[in-house]
Amino acid sequence: MPRDAITPPTPFDWIDGQADRRRSAGLERVLRPRPPRSDLLDLAGNDYLGLTRHPAVVDAAADAARVWGGGATGSRLVTGSTELHAELEAELAEFCGFESALVLSSGYAANLAAVTALAPHGTLIVSDAGNHASLIDGCRLARGTTSVVPHATPEAVRKALATHTGAGLVVTDSVFSVDGDAAPLAETAGVCREFGAGLLLDDAHGLGVLGTGGRGAAQAAGLAGAPDVVATVTLSKSLGSQGGAVLGPARVIAHLLNTARTFIFDTGLAPAAAGAARAALGVLRAEPARAERARQVAHTLYTRLTGAGFDSARPDAAVVSVRAPSPAAAVRWAADCRAMGLLVGCFRPPSVPDGISRLRLTARADLTDEAIDRVLTVVTETAPEGARDV
Amino acid sequence: MPRDAITPPTPFDWIDGQADRRRSAGLERVLRPRPPRSDLLDLAGNDYLGLTRHPAVVDAAADAARVWGGGATGSRLVTGSTELHAELEAELAEFCGFESALVLSSGYAANLAAVTALAPHGTLIVSDAGNHASLIDGCRLARGTTSVVPHATPEAVRKALATHTGAGLVVTDSVFSVDGDAAPLAETAGVCREFGAGLLLDDAHGLGVLGTGGRGAAQAAGLAGAPDVVATVTLSKSLGSQGGAVLGPARVIAHLLNTARTFIFDTGLAPAAAGAARAALGVLRAEPARAERARQVAHTLYTRLTGAGFDSARPDAAVVSVRAPSPAAAVRWAADCRAMGLLVGCFRPPSVPDGISRLRLTARADLTDEAIDRVLTVVTETAPEGARDV
Repeated sequence: MPRDAITPPTPFDWIDGQADRRRSAGLERVLRPRPPRSDLLDLAGNDYLGLTRHPAVVDAAADAARVWGGGATGSRLVTGSTELHAELEAELAEFCGFESALVLSSGYAANLAAVTALAPHGTLIVSDAGNHASLIDGCRLARGTTSVVPHATPEAVRKALATHTGAGLVVTDSVFSVDGDAAPLAETAGVCREFGAGLLLDDAHGLGVLGTGGRGAAQAAGLAGAPDVVATVTLSKSLGSQGGAVLGPARVIAHLLNTARTFIFDTGLAPAAAGAARAALGVLRAEPARAERARQVAHTLYTRLTGAGFDSARPDAAVVSVRAPSPAAAVRWAADCRAMGLLVGCFRPPSVPDGISRLRLTARADLTDEAIDRVLTVVTETAPEGARDV
Repeated sequence: MPRDAITPPTPFDWIDGQADRRRSAGLERVLRPRPPRSDLLDLAGNDYLGLTRHPAVVDAAADAARVWGGGATGSRLVTGSTELHAELEAELAEFCGFESALVLSSGYAANLAAVTALAPHGTLIVSDAGNHASLIDGCRLARGTTSVVPHATPEAVRKALATHTGAGLVVTDSVFSVDGDAAPLAETAGVCREFGAGLLLDDAHGLGVLGTGGRGAAQAAGLAGAPDVVATVTLSKSLGSQGGAVLGPARVIAHLLNTARTFIFDTGLAPAAAGAARAALGVLRAEPARAERARQVAHTLYTRLTGAGFDSARPDAAVVSVRAPSPAAAVRWAADCRAMGLLVGCFRPPSVPDGISRLRLTARADLTDEAIDRVLTVVTETAPEGARDV
């Protein structure tokens, strides 16, 4: 018998075939580490309010590391809760208009925590087809059953809830991260209330941009603090830091800290990140116009891009997307923008729910009118064939 | 018809019943935010090497925030990869003896990434019954099928793999977080190789403690850098910071960055955390005796605790557990220790796989002999009835 016949396969050999297929399809990703400072105009990051390098934010991160150390040293339930975490939670809850808040190490962890803890066995989870990966993974981890409904369609939510007699939980992004469109929150909440279902909304892209002074989508829709509404937020976008939080009624937050695995079995958020987020929240409270400016910049970008013939969805927050004719064209387009000094996001499968590749521009509150002019010039000059009539 | 009959239930009412049951069973958890400085002797955190407040670590966190900002601003695939992340990855891989490394925002995220990306449909995942929650959740999210096998039993791994003809992935903690015992890695790797299965080990509690100068359990077992071995680590324990990493062959790391959802759809680790972890790694390289000292302290604690009649498992790393007669007794015991100035962990259901409640003591490299004496005095004086013969 030849040796090959009894040699077991080498593990992970199957990875090479997948890599080849990704390369052929123009879908290979590589990391591109950036230097501390760059002349690129950044419309790719999620620093919507321009706070990540704000002196108050940076100083607070540094101070927190000096006062509390480099890490939280343990689970929030053991040694990982500092007074800084408690202050951040109290201030986040108050700002967004909720009774209570719980900070986790990422928005991803916050979504996993919220969905799994609030959808035990017997629950029907109704999940929007455009939801973020972290909500989808939360649905997959939860013991409840998930029904995925067409994007932003309250009537579909109603039909799904009508099929079920037990507890219901409706799960949706408040602002969808790919196209930047907002969920019909008020209508969705109305449907939830017809059936006594809870509403869980992921406000990652709403906090700091929507609502009065950036208080978020729940506040904007009149839902903040309601006994049947829970929101998750990230500290890594408008608040320029890292981490996530769940906001809701006190009993829901107590339930999460007792049961949510991504809270219990994770090290607490690093003090520097908690400090940075808290400082950013302070800046936002002191300068509420930043929220409106981010929305205004997004609207200007959208108006001028569609005016130039591009296919863009009307932005409800600070994300503006432009459709590209193909994944390969999107990659080339983004690379050509970069060569002209403009950094834009490039979303392609599997990061887009509908398979359509896009440039993704984020409207920062600190973008000047000259910068916006420059964006238009570069996007237009680098546009691939077919970009204006896809 | 009375109004009650048509009013739908209030969502989340079921939470109250669960909370009542937890309270009755003595299993209710509350957060206890700590002040910046405390006179308590801390044997509850996972700062095994005493580095989280090391001046080099704290300075590096503060410097990184100043140089790079409060947050990474986006996914590692968009704007979230800095040169600091790349340096940390290169240094982690080199230190632990692996070809490549990928840093994520937590160890939890690293485990979800590794299991899901390496166990596609058709894979048999063989998972140790004592594995950490993040590995278990990774198994639940992965498309492969999971077989849970008895704790630390290579023969059970062999039996499970023998039932399957497709790809196999064996998943285990290297040091189990509850009892502090080590997995039989060399034997398990031998079984994996009989069947051509990959081995994924979670070295959260091994990095910085096991192996030459703290290079971790894979290095200690002669498995670091092998083409069929992948390790995950946390940056939040021995390295005193926050975050996690996956270490493995370059093609595995490239596969993860292209496919792992908790990497792609999460904001990159905050620069301050990356800087702190990198500095801690530098201290560990310069002072390799810290690793041995942590193991030595653990062994001393174990020897003296069992000598005093307590039921403790022989520690293979820096975690020492002491069995308690009941959850309520464990809570009281920990509280009584605290009242006498000693902070210890208290593990009880659902955080323990076997339902047995424990005090959990972590052996820090920077504990003095006097501190160890004090630990013994306090644990003994506060021991509940039955603690010495459970």
